[in-house]
Amino acid sequence: MVRISCAIMNLKSSLCRRDFIAGTAAFAASSVLARTADGIAAAPPPAIRTIVFQGDSITDAGRDRTGHANEPACMGPGYVGLIAAQLLQKNPEMQIFNRGMSGHRVLDLLCRWEGDTLALQPDLVSILIGVNDTWHQHLPGGHGSKVPRYTALYRMLLDDTLARRPTCRLLLCEPFALPVEGASFKADWMPELRERMAVVRALAKEYGAILVPFQEKFEEAAKQHRAGELASDGVHPTLLGFQLMARVWREAAGL
Amino acid sequence: MVRISCAIMNLKSSLCRRDFIAGTAAFAASSVLARTADGIAAAPPPAIRTIVFQGDSITDAGRDRTGHANEPACMGPGYVGLIAAQLLQKNPEMQIFNRGMSGHRVLDLLCRWEGDTLALQPDLVSILIGVNDTWHQHLPGGHGSKVPRYTALYRMLLDDTLARRPTCRLLLCEPFALPVEGASFKADWMPELRERMAVVRALAKEYGAILVPFQEKFEEAAKQHRAGELASDGVHPTLLGFQLMARVWREAAGL
Repeated sequence: MVRISCAIMNLKSSLCRRDFIAGTAAFAASSVLARTADGIAAAPPPAIRTIVFQGDSITDAGRDRTGHANEPACMGPGYVGLIAAQLLQKNPEMQIFNRGMSGHRVLDLLCRWEGDTLALQPDLVSILIGVNDTWHQHLPGGHGSKVPRYTALYRMLLDDTLARRPTCRLLLCEPFALPVEGASFKADWMPELRERMAVVRALAKEYGAILVPFQEKFEEAAKQHRAGELASDGVHPTLLGFQLMARVWREAAGL
Repeated sequence: MVRISCAIMNLKSSLCRRDFIAGTAAFAASSVLARTADGIAAAPPPAIRTIVFQGDSITDAGRDRTGHANEPACMGPGYVGLIAAQLLQKNPEMQIFNRGMSGHRVLDLLCRWEGDTLALQPDLVSILIGVNDTWHQHLPGGHGSKVPRYTALYRMLLDDTLARRPTCRLLLCEPFALPVEGASFKADWMPELRERMAVVRALAKEYGAILVPFQEKFEEAAKQHRAGELASDGVHPTLLGFQLMARVWREAAGL
């Protein structure tokens, strides 16, 4: 995790003042003690009460779509369910929403961002998107997205969030895959997926968001486990994979 | 309507080769006899067999959503219905689809572009979008789009169309309004709507598309009729307004 002074240096000159403030505030909310470059403590960010998890099938994990906060069926049996169980034990006042939708690409998130994210007035938004942008791009018709468009649309998600919720924390998760023999997600697509990971890392830095380094941690874990033990089809985690995700997410978030 | 040599000059250097070819081909398909800058006739574009009308409630006009080609109920009672009746009389082989959806903004079009436009394999796509991007932006929550995003998303629609259907004709319609006393669409919003009209005009030029100058023609007509006789709430045309639209559209399209 970069220090806040680095985050400030990395903010691109194209960011407007509001983006700058918002990005700084979001970063200040991380587990690292927030200090400005001259050592003066930044104003404490508001407490985290509402968390929204956004993404595709990996986040969805077959959850109940009635969408209530905190209910086990609505959290689903994936990493969101595991994280929610742990966070709610410590903080029963929290409201946690899973809004992952199977098959979704970054464009689908943008289209439902208002109703499915901003309307919930989140203090923290976690985003994991990009596998379908790659996967669908390689299916007949090419309905995913090319990397420049993925970047442009992802940026819109972040801009919209900070425009409406300037103190909202952003957790950007690396899209990840561990291609295994015979899997639907092909090893040939990994270079392109790695480009998207690089985009997410760059956006996290630019927006002062927290990066969740899933790919790196899955690759580390794959030294001890067969890839298929972590993600049976190379993309959708097993329970072991989901446990890894929950741990990596909580470490990054400091929650 | 600009000549093709102008269209070529106006193509921005950022356009890739495919965009250039596609834009040129689309323009060559207009009613103007297509010639390259050195006077050699361009290859004739394929005949227009399938037309898709895309847009918001003005295009929708309360159509039957079963969405069949050519059926009167599915064309709706608006400008699409009037144009379809005229075109099908001359060309019964044509397939005309109305895919306007009430309330839609440019983002909504992008989200359903694949299934609702490209999958229909159009030879001509007519786009009329922008009123809701303005209107919703001024409602609580601001769910429309600011002009730079409108531009970026509109450009994605055009890029996607030409990438998949390089010879597809593009008709870009000026979003228009005639604010009337007490209307929901406020006169205060007109400067912003005019910015979007300017965007559409610039994109038409850049992509070698045909511009349909609705605002200009509604303003001309408003010298002879009260604005409310053309669009009762300033936005949704009366039958007189729809007749004007059909005439202006066909003149621009040369069909």
